[in-house]
Amino acid sequence: MYPNDGFRELERQECLRLLAEVPVGRIVHTRQALPAVLPVNFCLDGDGAVLLRTAAASELVRAIDGAVVAFEADQVDAGTHSGWSVVVTGAASVVRDPAEHDRLTRTGPRSWVPSPEEVFVRIEPDLVTGRALVGGRTLYGLPLAD
Amino acid sequence: MYPNDGFRELERQECLRLLAEVPVGRIVHTRQALPAVLPVNFCLDGDGAVLLRTAAASELVRAIDGAVVAFEADQVDAGTHSGWSVVVTGAASVVRDPAEHDRLTRTGPRSWVPSPEEVFVRIEPDLVTGRALVGGRTLYGLPLAD
Repeated sequence: MYPNDGFRELERQECLRLLAEVPVGRIVHTRQALPAVLPVNFCLDGDGAVLLRTAAASELVRAIDGAVVAFEADQVDAGTHSGWSVVVTGAASVVRDPAEHDRLTRTGPRSWVPSPEEVFVRIEPDLVTGRALVGGRTLYGLPLAD
Repeated sequence: MYPNDGFRELERQECLRLLAEVPVGRIVHTRQALPAVLPVNFCLDGDGAVLLRTAAASELVRAIDGAVVAFEADQVDAGTHSGWSVVVTGAASVVRDPAEHDRLTRTGPRSWVPSPEEVFVRIEPDLVTGRALVGGRTLYGLPLAD
């Protein structure tokens, strides 16, 4: 978060509630020493961890397994200049426990692009931050929603 | 981009055309040694550079001025599992040339949250990559759009 920049910070529980409302977020990581970002569909585990499902052989898995990543989701209304953004920062790891894999096969996210061999990736919710555009003022005649 | 993962890679010109259609993207950088991502409104310069406008004293400016960052925008339809994502990777820098600042004051992006003292940030389009969800197959009975 960037304090004092005109946005309102959101509490962890509000962040998780908002995250649960959207199907797609963006996983931010490093690839070949450069910043990289990739949209993925996801769901939240009961403890607020972000769950992804992807091909076991994917470059994404190789890039993030064991790394600290950021996962971002947002909803922004360009018409009213209102919206929110939530970022979960934590270690990403492939789910290797067979029982946990079975549980996520039943309850976890489903791939939009299925692969013969898929894995689940879990991002620990070590740091959950969010911001909303603060309302109450107008900009170029447009109201900013609360 | 992650080849062979079921997505179609987009050419640079197609990426820039798509970027020009959306008002908001996400700037990916490093903050206190952690991956960070922040949605911002933006516009494209004639050469494909990404232009942002923000408070001169913002933490974002301190975090990215002089750094290589990634800027991502996307449009995803969760209903049809179709969409695209474009990433511009390059050096970010505050526009310090007065003539260039004047030009961008007239033609550049406008802040959604105005500040008394604002600067323009330019992200060089050194690397422009994009991907679209490839159609033609079905997933859980839902058609994947082309």
